[in-house]
Amino acid sequence: MKKVAIGIDIGGTNTAIGVVDAEGVILYERKPQMATPQKAENPDMKKDMSDKLLAKFVKDLSDEIKKAIEAAGKGNPDIEVAGIGIGAPNANYYSGTIEHAPNLPFVGVINFAELIKANFPTLKFVKLTNDANAAALGELIYGGGRGMKNFALMTLGTGLGSGLIVNGDLVYGADGFAGECGHVTVVPDGRLCGCGGRGHLEAYCSATGIKRTVYELLAKYNDSKSPLSDIPMNQMTSKKVFDAAEAGDPIAKEVFQITGEILGRALADTVHYLSPEAIFLFGGAAAAGDYIFKPTKESMERHLMPVFRNKVKILPSKLKESTAAILGASALVWKEIEKSSL
Amino acid sequence: MKKVAIGIDIGGTNTAIGVVDAEGVILYERKPQMATPQKAENPDMKKDMSDKLLAKFVKDLSDEIKKAIEAAGKGNPDIEVAGIGIGAPNANYYSGTIEHAPNLPFVGVINFAELIKANFPTLKFVKLTNDANAAALGELIYGGGRGMKNFALMTLGTGLGSGLIVNGDLVYGADGFAGECGHVTVVPDGRLCGCGGRGHLEAYCSATGIKRTVYELLAKYNDSKSPLSDIPMNQMTSKKVFDAAEAGDPIAKEVFQITGEILGRALADTVHYLSPEAIFLFGGAAAAGDYIFKPTKESMERHLMPVFRNKVKILPSKLKESTAAILGASALVWKEIEKSSL
Repeated sequence: MKKVAIGIDIGGTNTAIGVVDAEGVILYERKPQMATPQKAENPDMKKDMSDKLLAKFVKDLSDEIKKAIEAAGKGNPDIEVAGIGIGAPNANYYSGTIEHAPNLPFVGVINFAELIKANFPTLKFVKLTNDANAAALGELIYGGGRGMKNFALMTLGTGLGSGLIVNGDLVYGADGFAGECGHVTVVPDGRLCGCGGRGHLEAYCSATGIKRTVYELLAKYNDSKSPLSDIPMNQMTSKKVFDAAEAGDPIAKEVFQITGEILGRALADTVHYLSPEAIFLFGGAAAAGDYIFKPTKESMERHLMPVFRNKVKILPSKLKESTAAILGASALVWKEIEKSSL
Repeated sequence: MKKVAIGIDIGGTNTAIGVVDAEGVILYERKPQMATPQKAENPDMKKDMSDKLLAKFVKDLSDEIKKAIEAAGKGNPDIEVAGIGIGAPNANYYSGTIEHAPNLPFVGVINFAELIKANFPTLKFVKLTNDANAAALGELIYGGGRGMKNFALMTLGTGLGSGLIVNGDLVYGADGFAGECGHVTVVPDGRLCGCGGRGHLEAYCSATGIKRTVYELLAKYNDSKSPLSDIPMNQMTSKKVFDAAEAGDPIAKEVFQITGEILGRALADTVHYLSPEAIFLFGGAAAAGDYIFKPTKESMERHLMPVFRNKVKILPSKLKESTAAILGASALVWKEIEKSSL
């Protein structure tokens, strides 16, 4: 028998489902992705309506998992499912719950692992964590973190998520929610963050943060020649800033310079905390290559104590963005098997 | 047989030696402490002279350890030494080395654990770490951290040291030097730090940082009525600031307020990284009680994401300052025994 893991990624819009082997080969992936149930128009959604939506989602998702296992089995008749790993917003690894997730329509604290497990009673492992933690586990099990005992992964997307690997395992902390590096303060009393705080890393070093820096610089320089001056904020992307930098626009270059300066200083703090072997950058903003990696590395080294200098690599994630969510979630299963065999 | 651990703390001036049982009772402590060899007047001390000093120190220390074991055995005839734990500046847990310690006269990288072990060939464990890490282990094994799996300890002394406990063990990182929270940036381009960096936590939230804040405020207010105005900087201590606050001095109170504001913001970052169950404060500056704990707690809560609020305790260390160094170093031994039995 060949053991496989189910990887589920519950996003605000879609839910990805895949069947993955121990080497990170995706044997089957549901395409198109399943739709995640959406919030009702009434923002004060009542608990009973939430419960109905949840019951339907659990049933539909379980059915889709069964179909995925069947589909994967066609080309691989000897597979055996070792467990289900789920990446979800506000997911708690310890309790298997999803708690007050702002982008999901479920009210309160949901015993999600338990609900799914009820439909797969023979499975030993149904585990949950948030998407950035799952990405770090994916990097550990299948990616650039293989063989490392200590590293950090930062996902530079709409927000900035992070997963921290210490002594070979993910840091969940006392409550299951550790690794929220997007919300460390990098500029005291600085930009308003989505969480309500001020000056957080995520407000500067994410796709959203990059966008904000673009308009801060456009306001500062009032440079009508910058191609960025022709793009409204709601249409701005990290890719467009990258294209402008490639075309020689000094404002676009300065945007990455500023982003890297702040990110590098924050990563120096990460090193002062955890002294990782490497820090992986993942996600759209990290795709800007040297524009972001160079100033980040330069700033990190400058902000490090001498004892830590020239030791820590800043690397692009080895997982492809298109499959990282499924891989990361499935990695939860292999990690759980490893832990249970200790 | 009753197992005991030897705890050694190598400071810049003195070296403490004690024999400790598994419950943290110090069966014997050398008094007065042994003198640590001092740097020669010539700052470019040659390697051969350093080696001679080191050889003598290793021999003397080993002799003193043997005497301590003998002395402890008088009242406790059935003791058996389980290992030696050593707290030392720039000590590397993994390699057992002391590396380029600025306050010790030994040049380069010293294989200290190996040198000591040569004099105690039957002992299984001779382990080293730095003093703040040792303090955190002491808190874990004997102190307020017993039963906790995730906590941080900050030592507010001349500098700010830290030890981080994650998943029940100390965070050493990839190179053995993790947990340098004193050198995270809290004020970009702020005060010069002893390490050469700028705006580090240690430059604000240590006995030295408190002193600097005193003179910053004296300069700001030019208040001749403050009792602090009568004390030269070289004679200022956290205790004197505490006394002035107790006597109602508004500048002294503001000093603690500012210190707590910055420390609390940094501890919120610690929570965002590691989500610990508690953060322990240790050392002279922590002795100011509510003057420092209250603004720190208030600031930490204010700077936390909602999910982390009202979860994390800020607590005074349960170890006495006079014995914490020996206890912390000895805790290395019990932790090593625990790990080896897994």
